[in-house]
Amino acid sequence: MTSLVSRLQHCVTPNALRSYLAEFISTFFFVFAAIGAAMASRKLMHDAPLDPSSLIGIAIANGFSLFVAVYVASNSSGGHVNPAVTFSMAVGGRISLPVSIFYWISQLLGSAFACLLLRITTVGQEIPTHTMPSEMTGFGASILEGIMTFSLVYTFYAACDPRRVSMAGAIGPLAVGLISGANVLASGPFTGGSMNPAYSFGSALIRGSFKNQAVYWVGPLIGGAVAGILYDNVVFPNQVPDSSLRGINADGV
Amino acid sequence: MTSLVSRLQHCVTPNALRSYLAEFISTFFFVFAAIGAAMASRKLMHDAPLDPSSLIGIAIANGFSLFVAVYVASNSSGGHVNPAVTFSMAVGGRISLPVSIFYWISQLLGSAFACLLLRITTVGQEIPTHTMPSEMTGFGASILEGIMTFSLVYTFYAACDPRRVSMAGAIGPLAVGLISGANVLASGPFTGGSMNPAYSFGSALIRGSFKNQAVYWVGPLIGGAVAGILYDNVVFPNQVPDSSLRGINADGV
Amino acid sequence: MTSLVSRLQHCVTPNALRSYLAEFISTFFFVFAAIGAAMASRKLMHDAPLDPSSLIGIAIANGFSLFVAVYVASNSSGGHVNPAVTFSMAVGGRISLPVSIFYWISQLLGSAFACLLLRITTVGQEIPTHTMPSEMTGFGASILEGIMTFSLVYTFYAACDPRRVSMAGAIGPLAVGLISGANVLASGPFTGGSMNPAYSFGSALIRGSFKNQAVYWVGPLIGGAVAGILYDNVVFPNQVPDSSLRGINADGV
Amino acid sequence: MTSLVSRLQHCVTPNALRSYLAEFISTFFFVFAAIGAAMASRKLMHDAPLDPSSLIGIAIANGFSLFVAVYVASNSSGGHVNPAVTFSMAVGGRISLPVSIFYWISQLLGSAFACLLLRITTVGQEIPTHTMPSEMTGFGASILEGIMTFSLVYTFYAACDPRRVSMAGAIGPLAVGLISGANVLASGPFTGGSMNPAYSFGSALIRGSFKNQAVYWVGPLIGGAVAGILYDNVVFPNQVPDSSLRGINADGV
Repeated sequence: MTSLVSRLQHCVTPNALRSYLAEFISTFFFVFAAIGAAMASRKLMHDAPLDPSSLIGIAIANGFSLFVAVYVASNSSGGHVNPAVTFSMAVGGRISLPVSIFYWISQLLGSAFACLLLRITTVGQEIPTHTMPSEMTGFGASILEGIMTFSLVYTFYAACDPRRVSMAGAIGPLAVGLISGANVLASGPFTGGSMNPAYSFGSALIRGSFKNQAVYWVGPLIGGAVAGILYDNVVFPNQVPDSSLRGINADGV
Repeated sequence: MTSLVSRLQHCVTPNALRSYLAEFISTFFFVFAAIGAAMASRKLMHDAPLDPSSLIGIAIANGFSLFVAVYVASNSSGGHVNPAVTFSMAVGGRISLPVSIFYWISQLLGSAFACLLLRITTVGQEIPTHTMPSEMTGFGASILEGIMTFSLVYTFYAACDPRRVSMAGAIGPLAVGLISGANVLASGPFTGGSMNPAYSFGSALIRGSFKNQAVYWVGPLIGGAVAGILYDNVVFPNQVPDSSLRGINADGV
Repeated sequence: MTSLVSRLQHCVTPNALRSYLAEFISTFFFVFAAIGAAMASRKLMHDAPLDPSSLIGIAIANGFSLFVAVYVASNSSGGHVNPAVTFSMAVGGRISLPVSIFYWISQLLGSAFACLLLRITTVGQEIPTHTMPSEMTGFGASILEGIMTFSLVYTFYAACDPRRVSMAGAIGPLAVGLISGANVLASGPFTGGSMNPAYSFGSALIRGSFKNQAVYWVGPLIGGAVAGILYDNVVFPNQVPDSSLRGINADGV
Repeated sequence: MTSLVSRLQHCVTPNALRSYLAEFISTFFFVFAAIGAAMASRKLMHDAPLDPSSLIGIAIANGFSLFVAVYVASNSSGGHVNPAVTFSMAVGGRISLPVSIFYWISQLLGSAFACLLLRITTVGQEIPTHTMPSEMTGFGASILEGIMTFSLVYTFYAACDPRRVSMAGAIGPLAVGLISGANVLASGPFTGGSMNPAYSFGSALIRGSFKNQAVYWVGPLIGGAVAGILYDNVVFPNQVPDSSLRGINADGV
């Protein structure tokens, strides 16, 4: 019992509590802009189906706001802003399981709160959820979301790799945001382009429709975990870089 | 009396005067591009209602020019470019009240001057103002603008945090600009996406219509002040970061 | 006579010749992408008038390619890519008059060569030139182009200011590119958004139409020169920054 | 025989194998987003011809994902992500011929695998290939692709130049990505905007149509090789920069 208490003590230090708040705030920023952009497009289009312009607006809002969300939280919580990132970090042993659960809760609450405020202030606009066309299977959609989350989490690992800290410090969060924006452009009409269970959950909760919700959890969690394992153990396992003449050397020193 | 003079002396040093000029110039740059993009869209669309493409153009002009405006003023005035940022800094004691008043005046003049020049050179084009659809309440619009200004000012605080100066130096102004662009995409058809009382005031002054002007002052000033208080006292109160392994560490060292 | 030769000798050192080549290549990159994007839009729209989507495409191509053009030439020629920048530098005594003339020639040739190759390879597509609607006066258009070039050159000076070299090194060329892109969005239907005499000259030469060409020289050259004088003598005249607590400090150290 | 074995040994060290995997993953990321964006546009447009909005979406996805692809591989394989880059590096002696062959294979496989997964998961959507309108000649298209690849590879060389490592480290991969995105906007309706034989090959393989494939190999390989030779031997041949006062100095020190 004492052991359990002491094991949980590191979850409630002031720094830990601040990092949960940082995750809440950052997920709020991201989901507010991404869902808001989808609502704005619908309003301007009078609920006509998604067109390429609307998709670009949503993708840009997604990419820019995720960059900022990761950036502002980066020196407190590490800037996960995504349960799939936290899950991958927990699988890889970079974050303790209890802390990761608090991260998840903070992310889910931040997303739901963003959708709730959008719902209230825009007066009668529905919150859009991630959906897929009828011809796609849930299995195919999960794979698509999983692949994209793989690239997102892999980029996140590169961005927080201390071996290229000069680059990561400068431009890592931008890379995380922009790969997300690019993948939204690639997947908008197929799965909606979530790559983030908190993002899908918050909008589903406030809309009150959990249809296909599993797609947006299973794919991203598996894809993110595989990315972390591959990054840490296969592609960048503490090797000495030998590529300084062969191309861009991210170490920058 | 002597005391008052000596208290105001720091407002008129050469460096202080230069910083007012820097705020004037930067606010001019930002408002010129943002209002100009709205006018260009209207001209191309023959005054048809806003569509998703036009909103994207306005959002990109807003985000890119705000980045540059903050960047060019950053090592003179600190790059506020927004009365809500200055108000938040004054509330937090980072800038004296008299100086902040001169900042406000510079920002309002810069915005009005940009709108005036656009009005004159484009020959007969009306200056667009921030508006909201009839079904929205002023209270709801204030909240929406307040939330978005919260995220903008919070990002500004992160960008000028000396504890992550390596990152802030490199990419902070870009984060400030892009969160603004993302939020314009989220709020365009609801409030017009201002987050900046000087931006709304300048266009209203030259257009000669102050309808709903209060919405664009009350929300942003409160949202910005809350962001500063939260950042300084709750989320990042001089703690030692303990997250180097948990994610992106913005300290970069 | 000997004096003249010795004065011109610094114009033909290997480094000087390389910097002319660097200006030629960078101006080529920029004009190729910017004019190419305008041609691509016309082809896709079957020569219908400019619409907001097309303007966004042109603005993004302009901003992104100008960033890269400045970036790749930055440690050889300084990355002017624009006769208005070179003129401003010459007025401010940062570059000798003979060298600046070689810079101009390189920029004009690079622009013309880009338009020529586009004309040949795209088979029968006309090169678009910068134009303005009939209701605008040449004087108003010059002012508009002059204001925008002012912001572009002012940003360039900030980006190459050795007092904020850490920031300039990292992100200065991006700021130069993106303010150009933002201003294209603001001015597309009014003046075409040039801010660069070489860009306007190259397309006019290959198209064979120099209508309104003066607008795209007078405004930018004056606007750029004023920006340089203001930056060097008024806003940032070797003062000690005193704003470290008031906002973003670009020195980053 | 021993000599051959020893010459090939450096191709199969753990670091070499990891760099092939890094090339595979990065090319996968890039092609997935770029081809996916083209498929998404077609789906939203019900297979109507390309319009400016769709082109912008494809260009943004291309630019953002190429930035990230180069960034994540940069400190392992150097971040080529393109057979034209690898070919240019081999011509310049920066990478051995055997290693470059493994790089090519990894890039081609990564591209084909991305197209295959998109084909499967999106259920019945065709993979789009790079094409050109009937009035263009293969020769003209090769030149256009060659010019654009020249600018891409030239930018890559600048980004990995150790003489401006502080800048390269921070922002080089972004420059590589964004020049690609700008060139897609310039060439979309003319050649499709490939600049990358692996990108064209992968989509052609999965679509089963190699029409005009030579255009997307000959132009880019020649353009890329010329860019590398020019960069290394003419424009930046180990000279001392003398331009610190003339403009932006990328050395940043």
